Amino acid sequence: MVESNRNPHDWTVPHGRGLQSLPRMAAMDATELRELGQQFRVDSVRCAAAAKSGHPTSGMSAADLMAVLLANHLRYDFDTPDLPANDRLIFSKGHASTLLYAMFRAAGAITDEELLEYRTFGSMLEGHPTPIIPWVDVATGSLGQGLPYGVGMAIAGKRLDRLPYRIWVLCGDSEMAEGSMWEAFEHAAHYELDNLTAIIDVNRLGQRGETMVGWNTGVYVERARAFGWNAIEIDGHEPEEIDRAYEEAAGIPGRPTVIVARTIKGKGVKAVEDKDGWHGKALDDPDAAIEELGGIRNISMDVAKPDAAEPHRFETRELELPRYDLGEEVATRKAYGEALAALGSARGDIVALDGEVSNSTFAEIFKKEHPERYFEMYIAEQQLLAACVGLQARGWNAFGSSFAAFFSRAYDFIRMAAISRVNLRLTGSHAGVSIGEDGPSQMALEDIAAFRAVHSSTVLHPCDANQTARLVATMADTDGIVFLRTLRPNTPVIYDADEDFPIGGSRVVRSSDDDDVTIVGAGVTVHEALKAADSLEEEGISARVIDAYSIKPIDAQTLQAAAEATGRIVTVEDHWPEGGLGDAVLDALADGDERPRVLKLAVREMPHSGKPDELLSAYGIDAAHIAAAARQLVGAEVAAS
Amino acid sequence: MVESNRNPHDWTVPHGRGLQSLPRMAAMDATELRELGQQFRVDSVRCAAAAKSGHPTSGMSAADLMAVLLANHLRYDFDTPDLPANDRLIFSKGHASTLLYAMFRAAGAITDEELLEYRTFGSMLEGHPTPIIPWVDVATGSLGQGLPYGVGMAIAGKRLDRLPYRIWVLCGDSEMAEGSMWEAFEHAAHYELDNLTAIIDVNRLGQRGETMVGWNTGVYVERARAFGWNAIEIDGHEPEEIDRAYEEAAGIPGRPTVIVARTIKGKGVKAVEDKDGWHGKALDDPDAAIEELGGIRNISMDVAKPDAAEPHRFETRELELPRYDLGEEVATRKAYGEALAALGSARGDIVALDGEVSNSTFAEIFKKEHPERYFEMYIAEQQLLAACVGLQARGWNAFGSSFAAFFSRAYDFIRMAAISRVNLRLTGSHAGVSIGEDGPSQMALEDIAAFRAVHSSTVLHPCDANQTARLVATMADTDGIVFLRTLRPNTPVIYDADEDFPIGGSRVVRSSDDDDVTIVGAGVTVHEALKAADSLEEEGISARVIDAYSIKPIDAQTLQAAAEATGRIVTVEDHWPEGGLGDAVLDALADGDERPRVLKLAVREMPHSGKPDELLSAYGIDAAHIAAAARQLVGAEVAAS
Repeated sequence: MVESNRNPHDWTVPHGRGLQSLPRMAAMDATELRELGQQFRVDSVRCAAAAKSGHPTSGMSAADLMAVLLANHLRYDFDTPDLPANDRLIFSKGHASTLLYAMFRAAGAITDEELLEYRTFGSMLEGHPTPIIPWVDVATGSLGQGLPYGVGMAIAGKRLDRLPYRIWVLCGDSEMAEGSMWEAFEHAAHYELDNLTAIIDVNRLGQRGETMVGWNTGVYVERARAFGWNAIEIDGHEPEEIDRAYEEAAGIPGRPTVIVARTIKGKGVKAVEDKDGWHGKALDDPDAAIEELGGIRNISMDVAKPDAAEPHRFETRELELPRYDLGEEVATRKAYGEALAALGSARGDIVALDGEVSNSTFAEIFKKEHPERYFEMYIAEQQLLAACVGLQARGWNAFGSSFAAFFSRAYDFIRMAAISRVNLRLTGSHAGVSIGEDGPSQMALEDIAAFRAVHSSTVLHPCDANQTARLVATMADTDGIVFLRTLRPNTPVIYDADEDFPIGGSRVVRSSDDDDVTIVGAGVTVHEALKAADSLEEEGISARVIDAYSIKPIDAQTLQAAAEATGRIVTVEDHWPEGGLGDAVLDALADGDERPRVLKLAVREMPHSGKPDELLSAYGIDAAHIAAAARQLVGAEVAAS
Repeated sequence: MVESNRNPHDWTVPHGRGLQSLPRMAAMDATELRELGQQFRVDSVRCAAAAKSGHPTSGMSAADLMAVLLANHLRYDFDTPDLPANDRLIFSKGHASTLLYAMFRAAGAITDEELLEYRTFGSMLEGHPTPIIPWVDVATGSLGQGLPYGVGMAIAGKRLDRLPYRIWVLCGDSEMAEGSMWEAFEHAAHYELDNLTAIIDVNRLGQRGETMVGWNTGVYVERARAFGWNAIEIDGHEPEEIDRAYEEAAGIPGRPTVIVARTIKGKGVKAVEDKDGWHGKALDDPDAAIEELGGIRNISMDVAKPDAAEPHRFETRELELPRYDLGEEVATRKAYGEALAALGSARGDIVALDGEVSNSTFAEIFKKEHPERYFEMYIAEQQLLAACVGLQARGWNAFGSSFAAFFSRAYDFIRMAAISRVNLRLTGSHAGVSIGEDGPSQMALEDIAAFRAVHSSTVLHPCDANQTARLVATMADTDGIVFLRTLRPNTPVIYDADEDFPIGGSRVVRSSDDDDVTIVGAGVTVHEALKAADSLEEEGISARVIDAYSIKPIDAQTLQAAAEATGRIVTVEDHWPEGGLGDAVLDALADGDERPRVLKLAVREMPHSGKPDELLSAYGIDAAHIAAAARQLVGAEVAAS
C-alpha cells in the first residue's frame, strides 16, 4: 500500500507567466500518481461490473487528472464537508461518477464494500452524483451544468465568503457543445474568477461518436482565450504535466484557468480504448481489464486539509419591510424589489441576481442598497439559475429574478436544482397577458405549470404589494424551489401591511353565509374576481372570492370548505389552462367528499399585443367573463334542480 | 421620393479573400442608403410614439445595417413570401420590431397607416414579430433564438432544399451572452453554412446598462473566429462598409460570416443617443426627434426578387410501418426509431435530428437509412429545438429526439415555437423512474406537465410498439407542438399492428358491464394497471383499465363514460403529481355531471437509482400500489354507503 504524504517534492512551473516556483510539501510523485490513476480505473471497472451499468470508460479517461488533483492539489476535509474553507470539486461530467466514487474510496471516505454497491437501491452512490453524498454539493448528470454551478461557487468564494478556497470542475468535451458552458466562460472571466479551474477531459468520444472538435484541443484553447480565460493544453495522462498545470492555474491572478487535457476514453484497456460503442456500458470482461490495468490496488491517503478560516459576514440591522397603504396602486414587482432590499439590510446572507432586466423586476432596488451582494448575470438565464444554485450550495441565500417567461430558458437547471436539494428563491415578473403591448413572447403563461411540476417546489402569486413584501420575507426561510410570480401593472393594495401570509394559506377576501358560488383567483385575477363579485351581487348572486396566493401548496382546507358551502367553483388565472391554478384547485378536491362543479377560466388562445384590459377581456379572464361563468354555474344548478 | 433601382453601381470587395469584384445591378448608393436609414429611424420613432411603447432606440442603431440589406442585398418576393427561393431575414433582436416594420413599409408591403397601428389590439404588428405577419417566419422576442433558428433554415437551404437562398440574421449584442448563440455558432461552422450571415448590432447598451463586452467589437470577432466563422468588423453606420461586408459574406465558401457592426443606440437623436435609460421606451419628444432626423420620408422600392428555382425533393416509396407481434417485448423508443425510418422512406419531407443520444432514442435507425436527412445536433438541446423550428419554417417535417428530461433544456424554445405557429414533432425517451439505475437527472418526471402547458400542444405516451409506430405516423400530420414520450425498458406488445390510435383517443383495454373502479394509465403504468386488475379480480373487484395514450387532448368522452359506469377512478403515472395525466383526467371531469372520486398515483419523492421494478414499487406506481388504491376507493364507497 502506498501511503500518502511521504515524498515532499518540489516542482517548478516552467510556463507560469513569471510565477515563482512554489515549494510544496507532501506531494505524490509521478510514479505514485500513475498508480493512483490506475486504481481509479480499476475501481471504475469494478463498480460498473458490479452494477452491470455505468460509464467506466468515461471515468478512465479522466483518472490521471483526478489522481493528481486529489493527491496534490485539492484542499478538502472529508470529515467536515461543510467547512467553509474547503475547496470544492464538481463533476460536470456527472456520468463519470465511478471515478468520483473511486476518489472517495482513496480518500478513506467510503469503504470498498460501499463502492461496490454503486447504483443499487439504497446506496448513496447513484448513477450520477447527488448531494445525498456528503462530499457532493450539487447534482450533475444533465451535461453543461457543473461549470455554471462552479461560477456561482467561485463568486461566493471571491466576493462573499472572501476565502481562498478553489473551485475545481471536471468537464467532459461533449458537454462543451452546451451553450450554458459558454455562458459560464463569459461570466467567469467577467467576474475575474481566478479561484475557478475548469479541466476539460478531451477524450474525443461522446455517447454515439466523435464530438465536433475531436482531439483538436487547440480549438478549446482558442475559444477559452477569446472568452477571457487562461488556457493550458496538456496530455491528460502525464502526471507531471497535469501537476504543473494545476500549479499554474492556482497562480494566475484575475482570470479563471481552463486545462484542456487530451485523453483517451477507456484508457488502459485495449478492448475499449478510444473505441466507439463503449459509452455508458460495463466492460465485457472486467477481470481481464483489471488484470490489464495491473490489478486491484488499495492506495489510500489523507487528503490535504485547508487552513482554518472564517467567511466574511455582512452587517445587518433590524428588518423593516416596506408598508403600503390600502388602496395605493403598486406593482407587485416593485414591492418585490423594495422588500428584497429591506430583507437584505436585515440579513447578511441575502444575495440578489438578475438577468439584465433589473429595472423591470426591480431587483435594481436591492442592487442600489447592497451593491456588494448584487450580481448581474446579463441575458444568460442558465448561468443566472446556476449561480443561484452555486451560491446556495455555499450557504448564501440567493434571490434570482427575471421575466417569469424567461425562467423557461433555464428549466433544466430548475429541475436539477431540486435534485441538488438546494433552496432556490426565484421571482418572475411580467406574468400573463396583463403585461399588455409587448406580446406573447414576454408573457409567462406556462410558468405556474412548469414550477408546480418541480419536486419540492412552492409557487406563490401575490396580488398586492403588502402581500408580496411578506411573502418575500417568507421565501428566505422556505425550503426547496420557491417561485414568486409578480405582475407588471399596478394593482390596488387590498391587505393591511401587518397581515401575515403563510405558505399554504389563502385569503377569503369576500364571503357571506349564503354564498352561491366561489371564485378562486391569484394575482391580477383576484381584482377581477372582486369586480365580478360586485356585479354579481347586483343580480342577487353572492360570490365568495378566494385569493389563492399560495398555488403550491394550495389551501385545500379553505377550498373544501368553500366547496361545501357554495357547491360551485370558478377558477380564473392569467395562464394557460393546463397545470396552473385551476388544476391545483381540482387536485385539492379530487378525492374529497365534496367534489363541486368547477369551471376553469384561463387563457386559451395565443394572445396578441394590446392594452392589459383589452387582453384580459379578449382572453376571457376579466370580471365580465368571471361573472358570466359564475352565472352559468349557478344557472346550471338551478336548471338542474 | 427616392425611387429604387436607378443607379447601377459597382463596388469592389477590398478585403474579400481573393474574390472577384462582382458587378451588381440596381444598387442604392451611399447617399440614398443614408436617407433610407434615416427613414427607418423616423418610422421607429413614429411607431413608438403612436403606441407609447416599443424599442425605437434599438431600431435606430441597426437602421443603416437594414437599409443596405433591404436595398442592395436581400432577395425576397414580398408578394410571394412562401417562394422557396426567397432569402430569409430573422430579427433575432425581436424588440427592434419597429425597424422591421419600417422595412416592410419601405418595401411596399404595408401602408403608413398600418405601420402606425403598431402594438394596438388587432394589428399584426405586435410588440415582437410573429408569423401572423406574412413576411416573418419565426417569432422572436426571447433573445438568443433568432440565430439558432437561422442555423436550421440554413441547413434546409444547403442540405435539403439545395437552393442558393441566404439567411440573414440581425442579432443584438446583449443577446450574445445567451449560450444558445454559441451553440448556433458552433453548429453553423460544423455544417459549413456559408449561406448564413449574422449581423451583430453592437450598440453597447442593454436594457439596464452596458453589456459585458461593450464596444470591444474585436472580442466578438475573436470568439466568432474561434468558433470557425469568417468575421468582419465594420462601422455599422457607414453604408459602403456595410455593403462591402455583405458582399464579402456572400462570397466566402464553406463558412458562415458574422458582421460585427459598431453602432450607436438611438443614433441620430441627441437626447437618447448612446444614453442609458432609453431601452424600451418611446421618445419624450418625438416631433423634435423626427425633425432632428430630417423629417418624414417616403422612400419605397421594389425589393429584388430571387431567381426562380425549385427545391430538391427526395425519393419515396410506399409506407410500410414496422409491425410487432402480440406479446413481443419491445421498447417504445425502439419502435420510434423503426417507425420514423419507415416514415422517412415513404415521405421525402421527413427529417430527423437528435441531441447526441441517437443510440438511446433510436433515431440512429433513421440516420442509417436516410443519412442525407439526419442532422446530429450534439449535446445542444437549444440548437436541436431551434433547428427543428427553422426546418419546419422552411417546409421540412423535422422530428427531434432526446431524453425527455433534456427537452427541459430547451423549454423556452418550445414555448416560442408555439408563438411561431410551427409544427414541432418531438420524441423524448427515458421517461420516468422506469429507466432504473441512471438516477433522477436522467428521468423525465415533469415533461408531461411542461408540454401540456404549451399552447397548441399534443402529448402522446404510448405503451407498446405497435401503438408507437402508428402514433409516429400520425405525428407527421398533426398541427402544433407534438410530444411523444417513449420508454427505456421493453414492454409487451398488447395491440395488433393494424389498430389505429387517433389523437384524442384512448383504449379501454379491459372492462366489463359491472366494473367497480376505473384505472387510467399511460405508458409503463398501463402494464402495471393490467397486472393490478388481475389481482383485484381475484378479490372480486372488477377494474376497468383505460390506456390514455393521448394525454392532451385527452379522451374526455371515454373518461366520463367510465366515471358514470364505475364512479371511482385511480390515475397512475410515472411523473410528478402536478400537471400530468392525473390532472388531465381531473380537468376532463371538472364540469361534467359525473364527478367521481379520483385518486392520483404519481411519483411523490425524489427517486434514487435502482432497478426499474424496485423503483416503480418504491415510488408507489406499480401494480400493488394501484390495486391498493383501487381497494381503498371501493372500500371507502362501501363504508360510506
